[in-house]
Amino acid sequence: MRTRAAVAIAPGQPLEIMEVNLEGPKKGEVLVEIKATGICHTDAFTLSGADPEGMFPAILGHEGAGIVLEVGEGVTTLKPGDHVIPLYTPECRECPSCLSRKTNLCTSIRGTQGQGLMPDGTTRFSMLDGTPILHYMGCSTFANHTVVPEIALAKVDPEAPFDKICYIGCGVTTGIGAVINTAKVEIGSKAVVFGLGGIGLNVIQGLKMAGADMIIGVDLNNDKKEWGERFGMTHFVNPSEIDGPLVAHLVEMTKTPIDQIGGADYSFDCTGNVKVMRDALECTHRGWGVSVVIGVAPAGAEIQTRPFQLVTGRVWKGSAFGGARGRTDVPQIVDWYMDGKIEIDPMITHTLTLDRINEGFDLMHEGKSIRSVVVF
Amino acid sequence: MRTRAAVAIAPGQPLEIMEVNLEGPKKGEVLVEIKATGICHTDAFTLSGADPEGMFPAILGHEGAGIVLEVGEGVTTLKPGDHVIPLYTPECRECPSCLSRKTNLCTSIRGTQGQGLMPDGTTRFSMLDGTPILHYMGCSTFANHTVVPEIALAKVDPEAPFDKICYIGCGVTTGIGAVINTAKVEIGSKAVVFGLGGIGLNVIQGLKMAGADMIIGVDLNNDKKEWGERFGMTHFVNPSEIDGPLVAHLVEMTKTPIDQIGGADYSFDCTGNVKVMRDALECTHRGWGVSVVIGVAPAGAEIQTRPFQLVTGRVWKGSAFGGARGRTDVPQIVDWYMDGKIEIDPMITHTLTLDRINEGFDLMHEGKSIRSVVVF
Repeated sequence: MRTRAAVAIAPGQPLEIMEVNLEGPKKGEVLVEIKATGICHTDAFTLSGADPEGMFPAILGHEGAGIVLEVGEGVTTLKPGDHVIPLYTPECRECPSCLSRKTNLCTSIRGTQGQGLMPDGTTRFSMLDGTPILHYMGCSTFANHTVVPEIALAKVDPEAPFDKICYIGCGVTTGIGAVINTAKVEIGSKAVVFGLGGIGLNVIQGLKMAGADMIIGVDLNNDKKEWGERFGMTHFVNPSEIDGPLVAHLVEMTKTPIDQIGGADYSFDCTGNVKVMRDALECTHRGWGVSVVIGVAPAGAEIQTRPFQLVTGRVWKGSAFGGARGRTDVPQIVDWYMDGKIEIDPMITHTLTLDRINEGFDLMHEGKSIRSVVVF
Repeated sequence: MRTRAAVAIAPGQPLEIMEVNLEGPKKGEVLVEIKATGICHTDAFTLSGADPEGMFPAILGHEGAGIVLEVGEGVTTLKPGDHVIPLYTPECRECPSCLSRKTNLCTSIRGTQGQGLMPDGTTRFSMLDGTPILHYMGCSTFANHTVVPEIALAKVDPEAPFDKICYIGCGVTTGIGAVINTAKVEIGSKAVVFGLGGIGLNVIQGLKMAGADMIIGVDLNNDKKEWGERFGMTHFVNPSEIDGPLVAHLVEMTKTPIDQIGGADYSFDCTGNVKVMRDALECTHRGWGVSVVIGVAPAGAEIQTRPFQLVTGRVWKGSAFGGARGRTDVPQIVDWYMDGKIEIDPMITHTLTLDRINEGFDLMHEGKSIRSVVVF
């Protein structure tokens, strides 16, 4: 079949909207009509050429929602008409990682997915001249139709609106999941969130759900204060507007009459800046502070601290896709949205058609959007 | 009263054996007759002058065992004749840290202890000319008698031999506790231990207790192979005798027919070398590997890695005094020793009198001892 897609022809160039060929689903694969897709920083990172694993030409996009049109041989858990969210972290429930009960990082198709291929080692997309087009993060949601492995699709409530729940395919789950699955924040906790973009705001609403008492947001942009408060932030710090070092300031804020040591119980880096990651660790409480790295750092960048920070009880960890098992946890997050337990609508600041997808990237780079969504 | 002590007069000089004055115990304090004390790398670190927090003159030593001779006002949990192990990490059971249930790092007397003083801000030791001598880590076990706060004494089985259980005051608890309390290793785990000195060997016997399947010891000294095996090590790696990078070698060793990703479930740095700490993190399993820093790094040294290591599921943490609550957990470890669940005797390679304490430091620096113990 043919479908319309935004194709990343080469690094550093705008996406090109074009007709492409799409083969039907092979064994274990599913053809999905994408109804909406978010535009994420990770797409921009790859498009820019800074991603050392980026390959071209490819159809980017990994934050989508749509409807199953056709299933390949052996597919048993999905049927045409099901509403689905593609998962860049699949959940096969069979590999050592899925069976470990300790991680969400399914490894069953990691090798081929990292090469932009379906599990059989080929692509389903091609140019009209026959040139293969690579898949991206196993999803390629910047196309009106895509083929995705069965294990990389979460079946969700068919009543849920595509143009909102597509955001659960990445940003919402990454932020909320880092709180619930990775940090396992308890009621009454004090937390600091660095970077109040789309991920940071979802960390904040995750902290609110988890019952945190103090939710400190840190951002250089004062416009983010109102955004943070909208989702549950209790305190805002602009590092450029305080006297002295940020870590000491945050430790001071978290002191109580009883606890004069101070420090956050939990902190979250949503910036990708390795210097911020250090501050995030060091502002946590001696003895038990847990700092979670969520942001993606530039290639080659390294985090650094004195080991004394760990020996005195701080824990440094990270979170990918919010520690969520896609097929198990994503449908639940959709339900939370439908039940009003979490908000998404205000974060979708811009809705565009596929023709205007490059504007979505511009809005993101200019800091004008929390999330832009393309609807088909 | 007067007692005999090995006094650290100045950094870089041998200890001087001399008579010193010792005041009786004040409120909340206890006079202890030290019967035996281990010599630990931390004592040597401070004596060398490399410890930025080292102060002189002081009576070092923090790995002792002895008998209560006299208790100060208000002391309710100890009486003369009780056998005790002094605790450089006290357990007040009242401060926010003790009450957090998340850390063993009691903070009730941290300020004064760090300054070499008793909780009231004064010292009990002085030279015969009246010059005050500082306490060290709240213990000062390189003296035949010492004064210690009640909250920094673990009451232990009076049948236990002082010249063995003194080692539980630091090395044994640090190693075993890192496995049990900090890493919480499960039955069937694969673990790597870097550095097979006194701490590393105790990590190994902790791993054996915890039921680890694979216990890989890493050391540059082949003589340590036999030592490791004596306590439960299953595999030995000398990094200077393998081809290629150590991390890849360790990951390869831990692969199974089912799990072709490989990596240790847990790793422990017992070297204090920040480069080793990085290897220790990076040899752990994608998705769930936990690396515990135990070793004390030189002043100013920093650990470093790509944040990707954390985002893909590895956890970097640290352990001080094995995460053990001294008054609660140390008596239990003494019982384990008395019950034959753990071994200490073979690790006490040298027993010396106080006069020869400097020989104990020499043996340690020359790598000839696992542990030297001074008996009074």
